[in-house]
Amino acid sequence: VETSSERVGVWLIGARGSVATTAMVGARLVAHGLATADGMVTSGRDFAGTGLPPVADLVFGGHDVAEIPLVKRADALAGERVVPAHGLAAIGDDLEAIDRRIRPGIDVSDRAAGATTSLDRVRADLERFRAEEQLDHLVVVNVSSVEAAPAPHPAHTDLVALEAALAAGDCPLPNSGIYALAAFLVDAAFVDFTPSTATRLPALGALAVREGRCYAGRDGKTGETLLRSVLAPMFAQRGLTVRSWAGTNLLGGGDGRSLAEPERSAGKMATKGGILAETLGYPVDAPLHIDFVADMGEWKTAWDHVSFTGFLGTAMAMQFTWQGCDSALAAPLVLDLCRLTTLALRRGVRGPIEDLGFFFKDPLGTPEHALTRQYDRLVAWAAPARA
Amino acid sequence: VETSSERVGVWLIGARGSVATTAMVGARLVAHGLATADGMVTSGRDFAGTGLPPVADLVFGGHDVAEIPLVKRADALAGERVVPAHGLAAIGDDLEAIDRRIRPGIDVSDRAAGATTSLDRVRADLERFRAEEQLDHLVVVNVSSVEAAPAPHPAHTDLVALEAALAAGDCPLPNSGIYALAAFLVDAAFVDFTPSTATRLPALGALAVREGRCYAGRDGKTGETLLRSVLAPMFAQRGLTVRSWAGTNLLGGGDGRSLAEPERSAGKMATKGGILAETLGYPVDAPLHIDFVADMGEWKTAWDHVSFTGFLGTAMAMQFTWQGCDSALAAPLVLDLCRLTTLALRRGVRGPIEDLGFFFKDPLGTPEHALTRQYDRLVAWAAPARA
Amino acid sequence: VETSSERVGVWLIGARGSVATTAMVGARLVAHGLATADGMVTSGRDFAGTGLPPVADLVFGGHDVAEIPLVKRADALAGERVVPAHGLAAIGDDLEAIDRRIRPGIDVSDRAAGATTSLDRVRADLERFRAEEQLDHLVVVNVSSVEAAPAPHPAHTDLVALEAALAAGDCPLPNSGIYALAAFLVDAAFVDFTPSTATRLPALGALAVREGRCYAGRDGKTGETLLRSVLAPMFAQRGLTVRSWAGTNLLGGGDGRSLAEPERSAGKMATKGGILAETLGYPVDAPLHIDFVADMGEWKTAWDHVSFTGFLGTAMAMQFTWQGCDSALAAPLVLDLCRLTTLALRRGVRGPIEDLGFFFKDPLGTPEHALTRQYDRLVAWAAPARA
Amino acid sequence: VETSSERVGVWLIGARGSVATTAMVGARLVAHGLATADGMVTSGRDFAGTGLPPVADLVFGGHDVAEIPLVKRADALAGERVVPAHGLAAIGDDLEAIDRRIRPGIDVSDRAAGATTSLDRVRADLERFRAEEQLDHLVVVNVSSVEAAPAPHPAHTDLVALEAALAAGDCPLPNSGIYALAAFLVDAAFVDFTPSTATRLPALGALAVREGRCYAGRDGKTGETLLRSVLAPMFAQRGLTVRSWAGTNLLGGGDGRSLAEPERSAGKMATKGGILAETLGYPVDAPLHIDFVADMGEWKTAWDHVSFTGFLGTAMAMQFTWQGCDSALAAPLVLDLCRLTTLALRRGVRGPIEDLGFFFKDPLGTPEHALTRQYDRLVAWAAPARA
Repeated sequence: VETSSERVGVWLIGARGSVATTAMVGARLVAHGLATADGMVTSGRDFAGTGLPPVADLVFGGHDVAEIPLVKRADALAGERVVPAHGLAAIGDDLEAIDRRIRPGIDVSDRAAGATTSLDRVRADLERFRAEEQLDHLVVVNVSSVEAAPAPHPAHTDLVALEAALAAGDCPLPNSGIYALAAFLVDAAFVDFTPSTATRLPALGALAVREGRCYAGRDGKTGETLLRSVLAPMFAQRGLTVRSWAGTNLLGGGDGRSLAEPERSAGKMATKGGILAETLGYPVDAPLHIDFVADMGEWKTAWDHVSFTGFLGTAMAMQFTWQGCDSALAAPLVLDLCRLTTLALRRGVRGPIEDLGFFFKDPLGTPEHALTRQYDRLVAWAAPARA
Repeated sequence: VETSSERVGVWLIGARGSVATTAMVGARLVAHGLATADGMVTSGRDFAGTGLPPVADLVFGGHDVAEIPLVKRADALAGERVVPAHGLAAIGDDLEAIDRRIRPGIDVSDRAAGATTSLDRVRADLERFRAEEQLDHLVVVNVSSVEAAPAPHPAHTDLVALEAALAAGDCPLPNSGIYALAAFLVDAAFVDFTPSTATRLPALGALAVREGRCYAGRDGKTGETLLRSVLAPMFAQRGLTVRSWAGTNLLGGGDGRSLAEPERSAGKMATKGGILAETLGYPVDAPLHIDFVADMGEWKTAWDHVSFTGFLGTAMAMQFTWQGCDSALAAPLVLDLCRLTTLALRRGVRGPIEDLGFFFKDPLGTPEHALTRQYDRLVAWAAPARA
Repeated sequence: VETSSERVGVWLIGARGSVATTAMVGARLVAHGLATADGMVTSGRDFAGTGLPPVADLVFGGHDVAEIPLVKRADALAGERVVPAHGLAAIGDDLEAIDRRIRPGIDVSDRAAGATTSLDRVRADLERFRAEEQLDHLVVVNVSSVEAAPAPHPAHTDLVALEAALAAGDCPLPNSGIYALAAFLVDAAFVDFTPSTATRLPALGALAVREGRCYAGRDGKTGETLLRSVLAPMFAQRGLTVRSWAGTNLLGGGDGRSLAEPERSAGKMATKGGILAETLGYPVDAPLHIDFVADMGEWKTAWDHVSFTGFLGTAMAMQFTWQGCDSALAAPLVLDLCRLTTLALRRGVRGPIEDLGFFFKDPLGTPEHALTRQYDRLVAWAAPARA
Repeated sequence: VETSSERVGVWLIGARGSVATTAMVGARLVAHGLATADGMVTSGRDFAGTGLPPVADLVFGGHDVAEIPLVKRADALAGERVVPAHGLAAIGDDLEAIDRRIRPGIDVSDRAAGATTSLDRVRADLERFRAEEQLDHLVVVNVSSVEAAPAPHPAHTDLVALEAALAAGDCPLPNSGIYALAAFLVDAAFVDFTPSTATRLPALGALAVREGRCYAGRDGKTGETLLRSVLAPMFAQRGLTVRSWAGTNLLGGGDGRSLAEPERSAGKMATKGGILAETLGYPVDAPLHIDFVADMGEWKTAWDHVSFTGFLGTAMAMQFTWQGCDSALAAPLVLDLCRLTTLALRRGVRGPIEDLGFFFKDPLGTPEHALTRQYDRLVAWAAPARA
């Protein structure tokens, strides 16, 4: 596999957010030799020789409704220990260059201007990025803040209805769906790192399959759910019956503020909730809370309490506390996904890239949640023999 | 596979201990329809149709240096909520019948009487059990308290030297080795549920292979290590670097008292310690304590603190607390192992039964510690197609 | 002080609930010499010589809307390890005798029958108890399940308005207020162990003062709030600034089920919430959850996470997990309060018994929440020199 | 009280250590208006009007065997988030000025040079500091790393024997004792923030009383023991019987490394251990570990598990995790102690300053460990009315 001559573009929806900024800062620090790619899945031994595009070569752009310069965001993140302060000066020019490629995200005025205006604009932004940067591959990644679930609409489930609506100048998609559709229309892959609806809409999935586009998602698993994806299989494999599994998440930052709104957190709750019942095979009493605690900033603490019974009905319990920095956990996965999705593009995968379930709370196209099985599948898929 | 006509004998070293008593109480409650086999691995859907011998049909006997009747032990365990109190009356006769098949374990006087006296006696006990109970298969399971590591001896590593020593009336094996050797000499399988040396001695392993005997071990993973066997792979697969992994175990009961003696706990520490470095691929700062806390009785609390770094070196942490009842966790595994080892005996496995690594802290014959991989291997091995 | 000739009656609102049953079982076990009074505050050395009425001499009765016999409730509690199983047979007759003194609690039909019907009936029940048992002192204790906050009414704040309403055959009080009013009308003391409104209504407080009645409350502090009442002062005294204090409570049982209803849990949240701001002197970001988790039965697990800053703004954190049995924690306090309220009755305390703040989440009559100060005040007040 | 004209000197044993450096950085940042004194006990409302010397006016000097410049130490501490990075440039000159007042600490060669050489030198250093800085009061504070317990010697308990030994040119004191003695000889107060022997030697205590010197100690309580000093009284006051109290401390840094040596940690273990039995009034099973975990740096995590029984013997449990920065917790207390000890000097306190028990694990001169009582005593003592 000859990769070095390829140009891979990464278009981030929510490009000025913490996850996107951390990913771009990290990639540029790696490019300058100021950081290593440690902490990325695809920098591990199991991915040696898979011909993935180098992190240093990824070309970034994106959409965001915010206007704060990336350099300022990077400084703020350094102040919270999300990224190291020492290398930021060296990559200032890089961040400014990316800044110039970030376009305004879809906002209220956009949608008011006419139903398909935003779709047209997003599509044009992507095409311009592809042309100006002479990209061989383009991956659109949604790392924007959580979207409220859209009201049901016939065009969500039926591709014919969707195309009829669009032809009539109507756009009944939520923002995440508009970004996904625009990606498909310009022959880009779409990765949903959030719990938004996007490619969960059957009409968009059908369009991707028909047009030969690929997508991956949904909702990166970075903390509590990551742990659940190894602990729930353990209980199942050991024949231990989970009686209840309670969880509390304390988080600050923009993400915490969004999730403090019930209509937005509903999506998150849904993607978090599936794993237990699907892995254990029976419904579990599982109260779950997401609390916005401003002083925690970019940091998150999750506490889970599991009560279970063993042989002869003996009741036992386990608890865990996870103290993580969400952006530091999510950003390398975003980079991993860009590299791996490029592989899918090269291979012409159509529809959901099922082999990427490892990364997601609600893996599209497959019900498997056990992390090790997901990992082994990923490694096998990425192996050069497959290329 | 026609299994119902087979008679499978289970000979427990440490037959009056908490684990053995819980296993036998459970098996007899199941036999009387007073409990289900829930909480056993092999009662799960993945083992349907594998033709394993029914738990209710297992015939128990064993060795122990203690003389307390099983009925009394069972009552004490019910008082600590390890087994249910309600069904004990119904199985009193069964326990008394087993009591009559429990022979004195190897003790100091035995070994003083002559080097090979204890070996000869154990062997005779096993032969008598096999004959009197007309057993088709015999599985010897070591669930005795932890043994101090033996001083090195040439006969431990070299089978020729071992047989020469035995021929000369010398027996340079620790107790666990004597039990294993006796098992092999009477064509029984040997399962080591403890961290004792036993089948880790190369001379015994060589003898098993030469004679076509099988064995499994070592040291059942029931709590802290069980969790480590799913969490350590998670860190590895996610590219998160573990900087330190500290553990504290508080436990009462006989096991806690034994492990409070440094020369005994050394074995436990060793089997517990391997998993981290072997899974992660680098050495980890991992202080580990086992504290005897009398008031905890049969219950155990383990606390682990893991500090790790992610992308760009961001330092994060997780903790867990595990509050389990060791005997309730270990006993079903002992029954699982008896059933599965019978399968190995039917199939004529020679040497370590590598497919049973799922159950052990220090799996003999294989370096794989990731629980899900161990589980998938176990299920594949047990599948009827293999029979 | 000659106490042995006094007869002290304890009338429990919610007499068949877990707390009441545990308290009565405990008192009767102590009376029969089958348990000690260990675990009660007033059995400690600091209360020696204070002339409190012996636990064994307390005479019990009460109201409840449930009809399940106490013997059955006691058995169920023994099954959950709240009370010991072994002594229950010996106190069966005692529990049946108490059963005969338990009257139907106020229910919907009562209130429908006429505004003051329930007040009249409760009052008559109390008078009959006092007469039949020839009581010297009577303490009414509210241990019923949490009540939803009543809609505001002018008669709640103004005693004149309340008495006018009652004279007109109208009874604008919530149930807890009716019980408190009935208690005052028959010269009994009233202790509110719940977060219900009861004596927090100014009109009832005014009546108590005018008539020379005493009362205590509100909402026994048994777990999370108990810990907060020692930890919050620690942060304050050390000059450590609490930035956030998040709490999650998992509980089953009847109490958990009640608190799962938002309009009931509101009261609990309110009494729990006050302590932080009042102790620290500034508002704190303090999300709090109470989750009903059926499988936890009578047991409760609370997890609190405190983030705080020290000198030069350094951010730090602490967490605690409390795993308690609410009834086992509350019942001895109920007995303590009966004994101590008898002291207040002897001394003719009017209005809130401020010296009992030690026991409550929302101590009536005093803003002090620091446990040690509350304890020292209690001990000083109970001292014989005061008698 | 006119305080502004007084000059108060603070002489730190271990002046280049983390605690000392943090204290001095903090004091100088406060002096420059770059930080507030928040996080100090004596900056709280309860100490308003007590006439304590301003933190900004304290004059620092000290001994240390290390030679690393304070500016470098401060930078390293900023890198670990112990002190803020932003103000360090502004106080660089201040730190360099203090650097010039730091003298070499007692080391092996000193003691080899002649028994009383080190005493003479320390004494001369203190006298010079007092003279050059024209100090009105001098407080010597021991914040050096933990010292191994000295072998017993008659001169430790008997002042006459001690003075005879000194007169004979022999100095049978451990280093901490030499510093204390030197302090007393130059009319300075001595504060022991470590678990070293120092003023716990009866001969030194006797000398202080005879000469009218005051001292305070021992071993600042900053984390696990601070929590124990509020939780243990809670269990006692509530009549809850503690059955076991296990603790594990993970810490890095120089302190962690020292405490990893058993002969040094013994002292720490001793001062930590007293509080439980002394507060509860009975011995408690209390395994305690201090683990050096290099990657934790200046940060410490302590986990405690308490099992206890309540009414009728019901067994319950609590756990806490404390994640603190020891230097950030200790440094403000060192400054508090300097201010408060100045008050003791003004008032002519002789012997142990018992009113400072609030700060210590092993409070000299008083068995009271309950934090709130210690706090109330401190506030009362410091109140202006006493001045």
